[in-house]
Amino acid sequence: MIFKKVAIIGVGLIGGSIGEALKKKKLAETVIGIGRRKSSIAEAVRRKAIDKGTLDAGKGVAGADLVIIATPVGLIPGMASKIRGSLKKGCVVTDVGSTKAGIVRSLEMSMPKGVHFAGSHPLAGSERRGVIFAREDLLEGSVVIMTKTNKTDLKAMKRLGGFWKSLGAGRIVIKSPEEHDRIVAQISHLPHIAAAALVNSASDGSLEFASTGFKDATRIAASDPGIWRDICVTNRKEIVRALDNYARNLAKIKKLVKDGSGAKLRRELEKSKVRRESLR
Amino acid sequence: MIFKKVAIIGVGLIGGSIGEALKKKKLAETVIGIGRRKSSIAEAVRRKAIDKGTLDAGKGVAGADLVIIATPVGLIPGMASKIRGSLKKGCVVTDVGSTKAGIVRSLEMSMPKGVHFAGSHPLAGSERRGVIFAREDLLEGSVVIMTKTNKTDLKAMKRLGGFWKSLGAGRIVIKSPEEHDRIVAQISHLPHIAAAALVNSASDGSLEFASTGFKDATRIAASDPGIWRDICVTNRKEIVRALDNYARNLAKIKKLVKDGSGAKLRRELEKSKVRRESLR
Repeated sequence: MIFKKVAIIGVGLIGGSIGEALKKKKLAETVIGIGRRKSSIAEAVRRKAIDKGTLDAGKGVAGADLVIIATPVGLIPGMASKIRGSLKKGCVVTDVGSTKAGIVRSLEMSMPKGVHFAGSHPLAGSERRGVIFAREDLLEGSVVIMTKTNKTDLKAMKRLGGFWKSLGAGRIVIKSPEEHDRIVAQISHLPHIAAAALVNSASDGSLEFASTGFKDATRIAASDPGIWRDICVTNRKEIVRALDNYARNLAKIKKLVKDGSGAKLRRELEKSKVRRESLR
Repeated sequence: MIFKKVAIIGVGLIGGSIGEALKKKKLAETVIGIGRRKSSIAEAVRRKAIDKGTLDAGKGVAGADLVIIATPVGLIPGMASKIRGSLKKGCVVTDVGSTKAGIVRSLEMSMPKGVHFAGSHPLAGSERRGVIFAREDLLEGSVVIMTKTNKTDLKAMKRLGGFWKSLGAGRIVIKSPEEHDRIVAQISHLPHIAAAALVNSASDGSLEFASTGFKDATRIAASDPGIWRDICVTNRKEIVRALDNYARNLAKIKKLVKDGSGAKLRRELEKSKVRRESLR
């Protein structure tokens, strides 16, 4: 048992899944859930994702050995400020936000002396939201990116890595917050925006003919707009960079189509086929 | 039995699936397969997708009541010229190509008197290729777009529609070749190019972190590059138009991200979520 008392702030898909795995694997003595609505806390208790819950974040984190902030990205820095006075000495704090540079900068500043913070991002989830979609095996085999800066306490980071491993993570990868944000802009944020723009590019008359290919390609566009607004706003720089690069790649293909350059077009499509097939 | 003797030219995923359905549902007395390789014909016979096969298209179509051209798009006009002298009077010819304007124009010109052509496009398939992936239920419940021009013989078109229905199609929709090409540019060709460009936009270092969302969004990029080169070249005009429209939608979102316009961004993402969720 790496941490005895664990507090999870935000008991949604990710927070709830972490709680369920903690309880099922008996990795903590007590799991406290902190939520914004009584109903989601009640649901989390009912699903055995948490032992008990509270709407009061300060009370919830008191005495915790590990605090996991699993709220939407935009709320993380404010939540950290709210709980900082209630954290016990030696407590480890992490978040599971999808963007890192801003959050890590902010949380490193707001944590009191004796409390150690390191950012985490489990690359698991879906377009769904809420504890009702939580699954104890959500993290099973997943990659968790942890962030390291010159302020990171290495011992705390190591404990946290062990925690994610014990929860089922397949691989822990350490990156700077900036490297993290560039990676996720390319493999998560850009694809999301690309899918949203695809859906909006099809006329109503065409949309009724959408079949499997279109549906697969645009599934992520059904994700929560509030969550994604936060992600876009907090990872602005890297998303704009990824969108510029994407626009260049699209323009390149467009030119080949326009010119009817069959052989070059084939090579370009072959390249993406090979890259796509390299993914397991 | 709408057609007694059916010849299928190109016994791959679609051609093979049509053959399997024809045989299983006993919708034709004889199904002849015409291929480019002995091995794929032998495989099609083994799978009971066809009764017998030949490499000689002229011989294969002789005496057929229905000829279905299911080769890659780029080969369809040439194939039509090759078989025109061997078609019997009263024969109905169709193709299952993914682009229509060029093919329909060409085939309407090349068909001899007494032979009726109408284009078909069953919206079914996958990124896979070859008769080994054929399935008798591939068309089950699918939409088939049939093309109509001022040269189309309405009786032949009606028989063909009945044929697709009897094969399992859920809905037959009649469009002009140009309308068809605009629709598929938006719901199939653009998404394909968007996926290919997404895969090529992620760096090798980022690609290793791709998870379910990225994989779903880019699955179609693993399709056959030769098939897609043909599609792009033959539907050039509508694909360029769709790409221009897509670029505008991407630029719109980019501006909102760059400006940090949270509320407007949320509305844009909400719009695509609602549209995506409207698809069954």
